[in-house]
Order: sequence, then structure tokens, then C-alpha cells
Amino acid sequence: MTRNKPRLIVQKYGGTSVGSPERIREVAKRVARYRDRGDSVVVVLSAMSGETNKLVALINELNPNGSSREKDVVLSTGEQVTIGLLSLALEALDYPAKSYTGTQARLITDSAFCKARISKIDGSKIQADLDAGKVVVVAGFQGVDSEGNITTLGRGGSDTTAVALAVALEADECQIYTDVDGVYTTDPRMVPEARHIPKLALEEMLEMASQGSKVLQIRAVEFAHKYNMPIRVLSSFDDGDDGKSTLVTREEDIMEEVLVRGVAFNKDEAQLTITGVPDQPGVAFKILGCISEANIEIDMIVQNIGKDGTTDFTFTVHRNEYEQAMNILKATGEKLGAKNVSGDDKIAKVSIIGGGMRSHAGVATDMFKALADENINIHMISTSEIKVSVVVDEKYLELAVRSLHETFDLDKA
Amino acid sequence: MTRNKPRLIVQKYGGTSVGSPERIREVAKRVARYRDRGDSVVVVLSAMSGETNKLVALINELNPNGSSREKDVVLSTGEQVTIGLLSLALEALDYPAKSYTGTQARLITDSAFCKARISKIDGSKIQADLDAGKVVVVAGFQGVDSEGNITTLGRGGSDTTAVALAVALEADECQIYTDVDGVYTTDPRMVPEARHIPKLALEEMLEMASQGSKVLQIRAVEFAHKYNMPIRVLSSFDDGDDGKSTLVTREEDIMEEVLVRGVAFNKDEAQLTITGVPDQPGVAFKILGCISEANIEIDMIVQNIGKDGTTDFTFTVHRNEYEQAMNILKATGEKLGAKNVSGDDKIAKVSIIGGGMRSHAGVATDMFKALADENINIHMISTSEIKVSVVVDEKYLELAVRSLHETFDLDKA
Repeated sequence: MTRNKPRLIVQKYGGTSVGSPERIREVAKRVARYRDRGDSVVVVLSAMSGETNKLVALINELNPNGSSREKDVVLSTGEQVTIGLLSLALEALDYPAKSYTGTQARLITDSAFCKARISKIDGSKIQADLDAGKVVVVAGFQGVDSEGNITTLGRGGSDTTAVALAVALEADECQIYTDVDGVYTTDPRMVPEARHIPKLALEEMLEMASQGSKVLQIRAVEFAHKYNMPIRVLSSFDDGDDGKSTLVTREEDIMEEVLVRGVAFNKDEAQLTITGVPDQPGVAFKILGCISEANIEIDMIVQNIGKDGTTDFTFTVHRNEYEQAMNILKATGEKLGAKNVSGDDKIAKVSIIGGGMRSHAGVATDMFKALADENINIHMISTSEIKVSVVVDEKYLELAVRSLHETFDLDKA
Repeated sequence: MTRNKPRLIVQKYGGTSVGSPERIREVAKRVARYRDRGDSVVVVLSAMSGETNKLVALINELNPNGSSREKDVVLSTGEQVTIGLLSLALEALDYPAKSYTGTQARLITDSAFCKARISKIDGSKIQADLDAGKVVVVAGFQGVDSEGNITTLGRGGSDTTAVALAVALEADECQIYTDVDGVYTTDPRMVPEARHIPKLALEEMLEMASQGSKVLQIRAVEFAHKYNMPIRVLSSFDDGDDGKSTLVTREEDIMEEVLVRGVAFNKDEAQLTITGVPDQPGVAFKILGCISEANIEIDMIVQNIGKDGTTDFTFTVHRNEYEQAMNILKATGEKLGAKNVSGDDKIAKVSIIGGGMRSHAGVATDMFKALADENINIHMISTSEIKVSVVVDEKYLELAVRSLHETFDLDKA
């Protein structure tokens, strides 16, 4: 890579990338290469892999039902260790560095401990350190509320910290280092012909992430999408900077808009169906409200057109919550005088995603034909502007993914 | 113990006392007993035993010569873990608790990272939580400078945090929980007849601590002495509250002033002697200044009366720094044209301490006679208002301590 003008880069490294002193030294060397090129660098770190689990175990041994405020005090220490260590490693290479905890970075959140939302970042101190030629190393996953209490952002928090800082500092790019070198047309472990995607739109990534591609946390992609911040996914295991990467960027920056960018899938869901309920205003709320109240997240929802004054609902929940959701639905069914309540936890969701769908008709039809050719029965269908999802029997998952990958020529350059 | 009016107690627990979830639960139970009695309680904690060493090892692997600011970021995490865990353990017993990092406690220090000095504590938020019936749990060993940087207080920092908080909150007592149940007339491992001291003066403790009784950190005792804060030393391994303790308190609160309170000793020193240097103004500075500049701490200093226009100096340093100090002294000796430079690292210091010495003559003489009776040669003598110290060959240490313990009737009730 050759560059002409200095840029501001935010780099985020996950737990495996900082899992040992050796790995931390590797991160320091990579940051140094960007500095040598003239770029300003802000680094966001996770805790060393395994550390957060160790802290969670201590918490659970003492009081799993204790206050979230105190849990966050304990949980936030893992990242504080790594930011200090990376700063020391950078100093050892003669690159001045300064670490920032969430409190010091003035990364202000609400007071929803363990799952706080970022409300504001005051980047002025960080900017001053960058201007003075320092590498700024920020603890991911954590912030501070307006009272000075330490908060954590919950799952995927470090990715979100990185994107939020990139937005606040008006960075040129937010780089997320993981153990893979980017996004693929589908999971290469399932389809060896899967191809690396060098560039895709934030909206496409949003659908990919929510459909089960685990490369980026959906919350971070949402944040990037909202503020139009380009994200680059890279592998921290690649030596040098000539490795592959995926740039997830503004739609207008994508030259070639493809019909289908990739095939995503998800085996963590279960479906529930309630039939023969009165087709009248408020019935959807009565059925789904009880599920939501139990803090069970609902993914797909399908309602059939009513006939004979009754209607049917099918929806999916996380497989772990299938049993609880089923009990609630049965109780609701009795109250509403439903004809039947049934479910299936051996299902899988398969989706095709692509920005080009907006302007092209017939993609869904091609998908259904491909599945029909393989004799795969479709339980549910759900569509968005740039995505078509179907629910099929879990046993057909691999067959469905492979056939769709081929149908839409994703294995071809 | 029965008490009439509610008190404010600051309790400090060391690393062994919070070394495991089980031990943390024991601390929570003890705090609960004080709360049941109506006392307000502030708890100051060290890191779990072993944790700080683990962090130091990580730091040393990456960059032992890195900036102290970043080291403090890493080192301060150990206490942050324990304050969260104890708060959770207290909540599990239905005692509301709130943890405070050094930053949150507004424990303001200077910016001498790794060895910061406390300059101010704003206790108003803590007081409000105490008034609301909460147990306040504060991270020991750490503070924050005026720029918001995390600082640590260095060795003995947690004891100092406890005393400083007790002073700022005008507590009734500062309790230091350790693995022993108080101060003894001398080390019971050396002299089985050593007796427990239930009460002694802060000034006496100051001399005991500096002379090698490792029960309390000297810095904390200095702080307590300056602000007249009573310290109680207790064992965190005693069940219930009927265990023994030593109250270290204002001199005016000590009813009976004894001649000799205890015998302290120290085997960590080495002595250095330079003879035949010009007896003229500035020579002490020339000799000792070079040692201090190398950051070597000097303990005892003795200068003999000059004769023939020359004089001799003897001083002691920590045994670990003996070799370095000797090299410096030899160079100085050559520059000054000294007659001889010699040293001995097989020495020990023995001291007798007692507030009654102020008004009683002859104590030192009794000490010298007792040592002479055992044929123990004295290398150096140094005295203060309430202490007499001698340096003897290390091989005579135990004999010296035993004979002095007996001479001053310390084995008798």
C-alpha cells in the first residue's frame, strides 16, 4: 500500500490479537508501521482472551444476581490491563503512546450497566495527544456515565467503541482486526468455493451480520451505517500489510453493485406457530407482546392472510429460548381460543443479500426455484429491500447454502 | 465487644485476606457484623494475593523501563477487581454496598507515578453513601492526579489509603487486618516468650515499623501519627470479634508509659566505612551525596570525631544495594584521597523502643551491658528520643534479641 496524505486510522484488536505478550508486541509492530507511513493511529483493545471469562467466573461465584454496577467495575479491568501493556510495548519500540480508560476518554454512556449505550464522546484530549505525535490506546467495551460510574457496553462492545471513536474523531477508516481476513460470500468451512469479498456496502454488511456472519458485531455496523464510517476487516495474523481485507463502506463508494453479494445462514433459531386466532386488531400484540415481555427476542414474523375470521402467526426466537417461548405461547393460545399451537427447533434460516436487488426483479424467484430443484421445502419467507430469507429444515441447511451459492455464481470471480 | 454509640470504622484488608472468593465472603461477613452493631464501615482493599505480581511480570516482559504512567494503569486493576467482588459479596448478604476506584473516591495525588503522594481527598460522595446506609468499598494503593491520570502509591499504599481516608472522613478508628493479631514485644518466631502488646503509642509504632516490624507500613503510621488517627491491628483469620488486637494510638491515650516497649531488628542492611578523609565542611555531602544520587537509601550514619585533620564515616544501606554503594564509595574515596574504604554485609541492626526513655536515663547503658555480658561487639550506635539502635555481627542477632528481651523484662506480664 502506498499513500499520499497522512490519515487518521482507528484500529480495533480483539482478545486473541492481544492474548499474550508476544501477540501484544506484534500489534505494537503493526501500529508502528502505520505511524512510519505518517498516519495518526488510535488503537481500541479488548481484554486478553480468557480474562473476561475468568472475571465472570469470579463474579458468578460470589453473587451472580448482584448489581450490574459492581459487575462492570470488575469486568472493565481486563481492557485496562491491555491498554497499559500495549502502550508499554509501543514505548519499547520508541513510539510515544498514551492509554485511555473509558472514563479518561470521556466516552459517556447512559447508566444501563452491562449493556450501556454511548451517548457522547469528547475527543478533544485524544486529539491533542494525536497532534503531539502519540499513539492513543483506548480501552474498548467500557465507558462512564454522567455520575462517574464505570459502565460496560455488553457483547460486541469493543467494535462499537472503535466505530464510535472513529466517528467522533472523524477518522478516515475504522479497521477491525480479527482472526479472519474479511467477509466471504458464505462460510468457507461449509462451502470451500466461497470467495473473499474485497468491498461491500454497509447496508449489505448489516444484513450479513444480522444473518449470522460473525465477523463484525451488528451493533458496530449499525453505528458505522448511521454515521457513514467505512470499516475495514483484516486479520491480525497476517504478517505485513499486503494481506487481504474487506472494506465495508458507503454504498456510493461501491462501484459495481452486484445482485447477490453473499449467502448467510443461522442455525440458532426455532420457529413457533399459532393458528386459528381471531383476525382482529390487536391480536398480533396480544401474541407477541407476552413473548417480548419475557425478554425473548423475536426475529422473523409472518402472518398469513386471514380467512373465516381467523388468522395464523409464525415467528422465530433463539433456540435457547424456545421452550420458554412455547410455554408462553400455549398460555396465550388458550386465552385466545386458538385452534393449535406448534413449533420446531430443528430449523435453519438461509438468506441471500445484495444491494442490487433493489433494482432487479426476479431474485427471490430464482432463489425459490433453486431450493425447489433440490426438493427443499420452505417453511417461512421474509424479505427486505436487499435480502430474502427463508426458513428450512435444519438437515437441508448445507444443501441450501451450497445450491444458492452456485445459483448466484458466487463461486466465480 | 459491646458499644454504645455508632462509630465510623475504616477497615483495610490485605491481599491474603481477599485472596479467594471464600476469603472475600469471610470479609463480607465481618463487615456485616459491624454494620449490625450500627457502625458505618468504609473498607479499603488490596489486590488478591499474587495478582499484583502477575501484572508486574506482564509489564516486565513487555517493557520494564516503560513509563510509570502506563505501569500504574496496569497495576491499579488488581484492586478494582476486589472492590467490585466484595461489593457483590455484601449485596449477597443483603448489605447495600458501593465500590470506589481511586478516581471515583477523588483521592487526589501528585503525578509521581508508581510512588504518588496523597494531596487531598474529597470525601463528600463517600459520606453521602455512608449516610444512606451503604458500605463503601474503596480500592487501596491508587489515586488520581489533577489531570485524571491513574496513579499508584507504591509499597504499603493500601495501608496509607486506609489511614488517609480515616483522617478525611474523621473516622473513629482505622483497622488494619493482617495475618497476625497485632504487635509483639519482638518477633515470636525468634523469641517464643515474646508477648502481645494490646496498646502502644503511634510514635513507638513508628520506630517499631522503621526498625523492621513488618506489621504496618511505616508510611501509614507516619500519616496516622501526623493526624493523630488511632490504628488497630487485627488478624483477618480470627473468627468473631473476640480476638486479640493492638491499638496504636495517641500518646496521651496510653495510660502506662513503659521504658522499653519492644525489641525490633533488621537483617536487610549492610555497612560501609570510609576512613581518613579530610575533616572539612562539605565532606559528608561529597561522600553521601553520590550514594543518594544513585537512588540508594541510607539508613544509619555515624561520623567519628576528627583527629589529625581527617575523619571517618560509617553508614548502612539495604543489603541489595551494598555492591553498588561500595563501587560508588571506592570512586569517591579515590577522589578524596581517603585512607581506606571497607564494608560488611553480614551485619544486623537491633533496636529497643519505648516512650518511657524520654524521662529515664540509663536505658542505653543497660542495653550495652547486656550485650557486653554476652560478648557481643557493637559496630555502630544510633539513638533517638525513644529508641536505641546498635549494629552487630549478623551471627549474634538472635542472641542479642533474646538477651535484650529478657533484660528489659519483656517476657513478663
